[in-house]
Amino acid sequence: MMKYFINIFFLILFSCSDNKKNTPPNIVIIFMDDLGYGDISNFGAINYKTPNIDKMVNEGMLFTNFYSAQAVCSASRAGLLTGTYPNRIGISGALMPYSNHGLHKDEITIAEMLKEKGYATGIFGKWHLGHHKKFLPNNHGFDTYVGIPYSNDMWPVDFNGNQISDTSNWKKKTYPQLPLIKDFDKIREIKTLEDQAILTTLYTEESVKFINNNKNNPFFLYVPHSMPHVPIAVSDKFLGKSKQGLYGDLMMELDWSVGEIINSLEENNILDNTLVIFTSDNGPWLNFGNHAGSTGGLREGKGTSFEGGQRVPTVMMWKNFIPKGKIANQLSSTIDIFPTIANIVDVSLPKHKIDGVNIIEILEGKESEPRDHFFYYYGNNNLEAIRKDNWKLILPHSSRSYKGVLPKNDGHPGPYKRIETGLELYNLRRDPGEEYDVIKLYPDIASELTKLAEVAREDMGDNLTGKKGMNVREHGKL
Amino acid sequence: MMKYFINIFFLILFSCSDNKKNTPPNIVIIFMDDLGYGDISNFGAINYKTPNIDKMVNEGMLFTNFYSAQAVCSASRAGLLTGTYPNRIGISGALMPYSNHGLHKDEITIAEMLKEKGYATGIFGKWHLGHHKKFLPNNHGFDTYVGIPYSNDMWPVDFNGNQISDTSNWKKKTYPQLPLIKDFDKIREIKTLEDQAILTTLYTEESVKFINNNKNNPFFLYVPHSMPHVPIAVSDKFLGKSKQGLYGDLMMELDWSVGEIINSLEENNILDNTLVIFTSDNGPWLNFGNHAGSTGGLREGKGTSFEGGQRVPTVMMWKNFIPKGKIANQLSSTIDIFPTIANIVDVSLPKHKIDGVNIIEILEGKESEPRDHFFYYYGNNNLEAIRKDNWKLILPHSSRSYKGVLPKNDGHPGPYKRIETGLELYNLRRDPGEEYDVIKLYPDIASELTKLAEVAREDMGDNLTGKKGMNVREHGKL
Repeated sequence: MMKYFINIFFLILFSCSDNKKNTPPNIVIIFMDDLGYGDISNFGAINYKTPNIDKMVNEGMLFTNFYSAQAVCSASRAGLLTGTYPNRIGISGALMPYSNHGLHKDEITIAEMLKEKGYATGIFGKWHLGHHKKFLPNNHGFDTYVGIPYSNDMWPVDFNGNQISDTSNWKKKTYPQLPLIKDFDKIREIKTLEDQAILTTLYTEESVKFINNNKNNPFFLYVPHSMPHVPIAVSDKFLGKSKQGLYGDLMMELDWSVGEIINSLEENNILDNTLVIFTSDNGPWLNFGNHAGSTGGLREGKGTSFEGGQRVPTVMMWKNFIPKGKIANQLSSTIDIFPTIANIVDVSLPKHKIDGVNIIEILEGKESEPRDHFFYYYGNNNLEAIRKDNWKLILPHSSRSYKGVLPKNDGHPGPYKRIETGLELYNLRRDPGEEYDVIKLYPDIASELTKLAEVAREDMGDNLTGKKGMNVREHGKL
Repeated sequence: MMKYFINIFFLILFSCSDNKKNTPPNIVIIFMDDLGYGDISNFGAINYKTPNIDKMVNEGMLFTNFYSAQAVCSASRAGLLTGTYPNRIGISGALMPYSNHGLHKDEITIAEMLKEKGYATGIFGKWHLGHHKKFLPNNHGFDTYVGIPYSNDMWPVDFNGNQISDTSNWKKKTYPQLPLIKDFDKIREIKTLEDQAILTTLYTEESVKFINNNKNNPFFLYVPHSMPHVPIAVSDKFLGKSKQGLYGDLMMELDWSVGEIINSLEENNILDNTLVIFTSDNGPWLNFGNHAGSTGGLREGKGTSFEGGQRVPTVMMWKNFIPKGKIANQLSSTIDIFPTIANIVDVSLPKHKIDGVNIIEILEGKESEPRDHFFYYYGNNNLEAIRKDNWKLILPHSSRSYKGVLPKNDGHPGPYKRIETGLELYNLRRDPGEEYDVIKLYPDIASELTKLAEVAREDMGDNLTGKKGMNVREHGKL
C-alpha cells in the first residue's frame, strides 16, 4: 500500500518536472562583489552562517575550482557577460567615473543573447562596464536596470563615511556624488553609509518584483550586488545579528537576499526550471582588515592572479537538470557561463572569438573536463599565470601583495606591498595555497605550460613580454 | 488527492523514524590517517572525487572548524578515544615499536563506556596506543580487533618498498616486521607494498562483517584506516582509476570504503539510527610531495599546531537526529566526541578530568557554542597555540615547517625546516590561512588569550615555559 502511494507520488513528481525540461529555463546570476572563497559556510566561514547559499549547495552543484575572468571589478564583469577574457575586448581593471570608455556595442552580452530568444532581462545592482549612456545596461540587452554604475567606493566620502567638503581632496576632485540609476536616469544619490545600507535590500526587492512580473515568460535576472565591497553597510534588520561584527551581519544579509530570490522563484512555481548561479567577481580586498572577506586560506586576494584573488565560491542550482548535491571539481570559469547558456537555450555562438567553453556536461554531472586550461590575465593584458589540470605556472610578474603589512580596520584601507614573482610551479592538488614552488621537481610540466603561454601570446599578446597579439578587440569609446 | 498521499507518506515516514529515536544509536567512527582538510571534494580536491563522503555531507552535517586532539598519530588517537587532551594522559607524538608504554588501563575509552551499555565493540585498523598485549584494543574495551598496532611506515622496508637486509640500517635495527594482528595475535606480516595495498579492503570487509554480525544489538565500530599515511598503496581495483596518480586512486578507495560501510548499514536497515563520524587524525605529511594530501590552503601540515596540521575535514551523519545538510562552523574537536556519545547513550562522565565538551546541541542544529576555546598542544606537553572564537594566538615555539624546502616524491620524504614563531595573533574569520599576524591591531585580544594560556598552564603545565602542571596523569607502563 505504502509503496503504491510512493509510486504515484514520484510518478506525478516526475511528469511535472519532465514537462518543464522542454521549456527554456529562467537564468538568474547572483554576482557578489569582493566575496572571498572562504566567505560561505561551506568553505569554513566563522561566526555567521549562510544557510540559503548552503541550501543551494545541497540542492544544486558546488564548484570548487571555478575562476572569475579577472581579479578586479570591471574586467571580471566583462568576462562574465561576454564569455571572453576581458583583455580580449579591451576592458581591464576597474572603470572610473572619469573613464570615457566601456563595453563595446558589438560585444554580445548574455542579456542580448537571451533577448533574441524572447527573454525578459533585468539587472539590479552594480554595472561597472561604462557609466555613459551608450554603455549602460539598457544599451547592452537589458530591459530594466536599477543600480549604481560603478563601485560603491567611488564617491566623495571619506573613510569614516563623511562627505568631503575640501575641494582639494583627491576623492572630492575625482568622484561626483554616487548616483543610483534607473534605466538611464539618476533617481537619487548615495551620499552616506546609511544610503549604502539600502542597496542590498533595494536590489533584492527589485529582483523579486522582476520575478513576479515575468513569471509567465522566460527571464534573465542579473543581480550584481554592491556588497561586500567596501564601504560595507548593512540594513537595520541585520545590524548586530552576527557574532562577527559588520562583515558577518552583511554576509547574513547577502545570504538572506539569496534566500528571498529563491523563495520568490519557489512561490511562483518556477524554481525547478530556473538555473540559479551564485558566484563572485574576485577575491577579498584583504587590506581592509575586519571589513574584508576571507580566501579560506588561498594565497593573496583581490587584484592578484593568485588563487585568493581569482578562485571564487560558486554554486549552480537547476532542479530540473543539475543533479542534487554533486560537487564539480573540474576547472571552469565565469567566462564559461555564456557559451553554456547559449547551449541551453540553443543559440549559436557569436561570430567573433570568445574564450568560454560550454560546460553543460559538468552541469549534467558528468566527469568530462570541457576546459583544458585557463589563463590568468591581469591589468592591461598581462599574462600572469596559467592553469592546466592540477598545475599552475606563475609567469614572472610584479604583483600586489597583502603579506607582511598590517591591514587597517573599520573601512580604512591598509597599504599594499609589491612582490616580484619568478617562474614558479604549484601543484594545486597538493597545494591549493600556492606555498610550495615545485618547478625544480617538474621541469617538463613547466615547459608544457610555458608552451601554452606562447600560444596565448600569439593569440592575444602579453604586455609583460611586449608581445602584440592579433585577436584583441577594442573597447567602446565615447 | 495528491496532498493526501503525501501526508500519509510523511506520516508513515515520520513515525518510523520516531520509533528509532528511543533506541540507542550505533556509533561508527571512520578515522583517516594524515588526511588533509582539502582532500575531500567538498573542500576543493582536484582530479578525483569523494562521492560517498560528499553524500555524508549532504545527508548529515559538515564541520568546518573541527580540530584533532593533536597533530600526530598516537596523541590524536588518545584524545579521540578518551575525550582528553593527550598530554593530560601522558601520550605524546607517535609511539614506536620499541616503546614500552601505552594508554593507561585506568583511562576510559569510548569502547569501554559503550560496553557498559551493552554495545558490541570492534576496531579494524591502526591502533597506535601501545603494541604490548596489556595496551592492545581488547584490553581497552574492544571485543574484536583486526589491524596493525602502529603506523604502516614502521617497518624494515626502504623508501622504494624493498625489504632491508643490511643489519646496520637504522630502519632494520629499529623496526621488526610489521604485524597484522587479530585480537592479541599476529596473523601475518605486512612486508611489501603489495601487502600494504590489502589494508583498506581488509579493514572495510571486517567492518562490514562486524556490522552484519551485530545488526540486532547496538554496536561501536571504529575504523582507523592506515591510509593515506605513507607508504601509500592501493588495491588493484582502484589502481590507475583517478587522474591524480596513486594518491588520487587511494582517495577513491578510501571513499569507496566509506560507501561500503554506509551501504552495509543501509542494507541492514540500521543507517537511520547510526551516528557515523568521518574525520582524520591530523593534517597531511607535506614533505612526501605527490604522496601527501592537501590542507586546502591552510598553513603547514602534520606535526604542527598551525591549521593545516590540526584542522581536519569532519562529517557527522545520523539520520534520525542530525538535520540534513546543515553546516557546523562552531569550534569543536575530536575530544568532544567522547562526552557527546556519553550524553547520547546516557552514561555518566568518568570521575577523572576530561577535556571534551558535549556538543550534542551542535548535532541538533542549534547555534550554541559549547566549546569556548581550544588548546593546541604538541610534543611532550608544549602549549603552542590557543583558539577562542575567531582568534588564534600562537605562543612562541619552535615548529616543524614545510615551507621553502622541496618535498620528495613517490614515497620518499623531503626534509623539514624549523621555524621559531613569535607571539602572533591571527583572525581566523578573515585569515584561516594564518598569513596575517594582527597582534598589533588587537593587543586586548592577545592579552585575553594569554590569560587563558595561564589557566591552561596552572592546570596541565607547559614544557615551553617549564611550568609543571597539577592535573597530568601517567601513561600506562609495561
